[in-house]
Amino acid sequence: MEYQYANRMSYLKASEIREILKITEQPEIISFAGGLPAPELFPVREIIEVNRRVLEEDGESALQYTTTEGYAPLRKWIADRLNSTRGTDFDADNVLITHGSQQALDLSGKVFLDEGDYVLCESPTYLAAISAFKAYGCNFKEVPTDEHGMVPAALEEIIKVTEKVKIIYMISDFQNPTGRSWSLERRKQLAAIAARHNIVILEDNPYGELRFEGETLPSVKAFDQAGSVFCLGTFSKIFCPGYRIGWIAGDKEAIAQYVIVKQGTDLQCNTIAQREISKYLELYNIDEHIEKIRRVYGKRRDIAVQTMEAEFPSDVTFTRPQGGLFAWVELPESVNARDVLTRCLEKKVAFVPGGSFYPNTARENTLRINYSNMPENKIVEGIKCIAGVIKEFVK
Amino acid sequence: MEYQYANRMSYLKASEIREILKITEQPEIISFAGGLPAPELFPVREIIEVNRRVLEEDGESALQYTTTEGYAPLRKWIADRLNSTRGTDFDADNVLITHGSQQALDLSGKVFLDEGDYVLCESPTYLAAISAFKAYGCNFKEVPTDEHGMVPAALEEIIKVTEKVKIIYMISDFQNPTGRSWSLERRKQLAAIAARHNIVILEDNPYGELRFEGETLPSVKAFDQAGSVFCLGTFSKIFCPGYRIGWIAGDKEAIAQYVIVKQGTDLQCNTIAQREISKYLELYNIDEHIEKIRRVYGKRRDIAVQTMEAEFPSDVTFTRPQGGLFAWVELPESVNARDVLTRCLEKKVAFVPGGSFYPNTARENTLRINYSNMPENKIVEGIKCIAGVIKEFVK
Repeated sequence: MEYQYANRMSYLKASEIREILKITEQPEIISFAGGLPAPELFPVREIIEVNRRVLEEDGESALQYTTTEGYAPLRKWIADRLNSTRGTDFDADNVLITHGSQQALDLSGKVFLDEGDYVLCESPTYLAAISAFKAYGCNFKEVPTDEHGMVPAALEEIIKVTEKVKIIYMISDFQNPTGRSWSLERRKQLAAIAARHNIVILEDNPYGELRFEGETLPSVKAFDQAGSVFCLGTFSKIFCPGYRIGWIAGDKEAIAQYVIVKQGTDLQCNTIAQREISKYLELYNIDEHIEKIRRVYGKRRDIAVQTMEAEFPSDVTFTRPQGGLFAWVELPESVNARDVLTRCLEKKVAFVPGGSFYPNTARENTLRINYSNMPENKIVEGIKCIAGVIKEFVK
Repeated sequence: MEYQYANRMSYLKASEIREILKITEQPEIISFAGGLPAPELFPVREIIEVNRRVLEEDGESALQYTTTEGYAPLRKWIADRLNSTRGTDFDADNVLITHGSQQALDLSGKVFLDEGDYVLCESPTYLAAISAFKAYGCNFKEVPTDEHGMVPAALEEIIKVTEKVKIIYMISDFQNPTGRSWSLERRKQLAAIAARHNIVILEDNPYGELRFEGETLPSVKAFDQAGSVFCLGTFSKIFCPGYRIGWIAGDKEAIAQYVIVKQGTDLQCNTIAQREISKYLELYNIDEHIEKIRRVYGKRRDIAVQTMEAEFPSDVTFTRPQGGLFAWVELPESVNARDVLTRCLEKKVAFVPGGSFYPNTARENTLRINYSNMPENKIVEGIKCIAGVIKEFVK
């Protein structure tokens, strides 16, 4: 039959990354394409142990339905963690457990967005946030963004000329795709602007715990007097992505609305996943685990940056992230990163062209490098290969 | 701040069941309110074993991101199962793994529904399907439904006078909330009507495997020439609900659209949950496990029905389901089940008033009894208590 799809299906399309990821499942590929954590760091033995402990101690509830809000001790841990590291003032009731932070984006769209509303985002921004919000028929405006975050004057100007701005979406630390972080001053300014204009800020921070150098900065929420800021996070990058456990934390009245939409969306998150993570946090030292991840990724970042410095032509620029999983490369304007990718895939090297990270004005001379998932020798080999292909195009 | 919620938030509200469930978390309550499986039947020891096996054999991929479509061997198992028990003709690529069958409802709304579209449903129908679809701004029409399913002439008539009917939503076996099943003839007629009018059928079947007596009937999909039928299912009722693993199976072109919306919604389902269930299906005999559930629930159904027969006043009617988790009670028109509930809660007995199961025309003299989650002596005690309270109201 001829399916009568919803209108939204005409402007949603398959994620380019997910499509590239399918290609990169071949083991011989050197992939800088995904946002994949290094699986050799997953605490496999510890997870076998926490699974056994949870099921032996309380298997019947761990496998049963639970509340939509999520497992209370885990919500409390998240609140305490944000309070102690990020200057927030949450308790468990501020926190809703979500199916990865991706679901926190989807639920935010559902709670706040009507067709025609505007989302303001960094330029470039996280690809899958664009798809999450787009499903609710919103429009985007990209806010001019430099190495310290959105430019406040530009943000104010856009708000002034745009009706129905509902959400400002931003990633505070080691942004996906650029690897850049917001400065302290910009965080304060952002909170003030949003409060003044009654706009919700979604502060996504999946990578913030993975800082290799420099000082941890407070959440934008720490400067929020109005209740405009919601903090999104996830266990995917500090524990294991396969669990699909993330969160959103914010004003309790608004979180209660999120709970209502989550009920209709999928009732609740996986009970046993929540219990296992909570038991892990009780039995083991996650800071030691995170430190291990930091060391490995930090080394990989070093190797990636050093190789880019040595191999890339001088008119290619790139970021030197202080943490996280990604670096961002800008080629000369004349070079299209999609063409570079096609050549690189022939040579079994993959990355994601940057164009998809712009909701409106794709800059096709950009690309994203994920350095967390490949061993060091392959990082060198892969970056050299990309450099060689770039040289074919810029010669 | 004054949050500017999306319009949909004005007509979504917290699920009454979830609210009642919070009350029933007190252990001394006799609860017929949830749709909770009996946790003493969860295969706890086997799950410890499959967790260990999966993690020891392939822990790194089991904890990593995976494809949006889901774990291929699990998708194949589901296709094979439906083919062998329900007369379908699926392969793995017809199947998308979802976060419980609840997410399959949500994704269906996202794929098919624009504001103002119509969903046709049984009367009464599954409460949380109403909330899932409502989030996309649709309207409902209740199709007159008897003990064999929707009445075909009435369905045709409604389609004739209603513009923009996108979805017919139905539960083929042991419906929630009534416990009724569709007859073979009605399944055939439904498939023909939907094909004629180019309307999608969502055939939800979470309870179909839990038949205590009578003959298993084919899926509506078995009579579908047009590609209109999508089969929704879940491991919640035959394995453990805490895993939140369900599926939707249908035409591959349409399933590809579901995959696109699932990417933006939450990327993928829990990897390790999918792997554990798949390993369980490989190492153990799920038919033996299901048989055990059937025996326990069948006995509980017997006790519930016998006690209702013995204790309820003669002008109270109720269904005698051949399987599943629920029976449906109709009180005399003058009695409001919400009043009965208030009295019963004082006596520590809970159920769900039937009014919420009607999207448009609440019949408040109805209530739903879930008999799967209470031991037999408590079923007797609880039903006797409800009978006593009903008698206070009908005297």
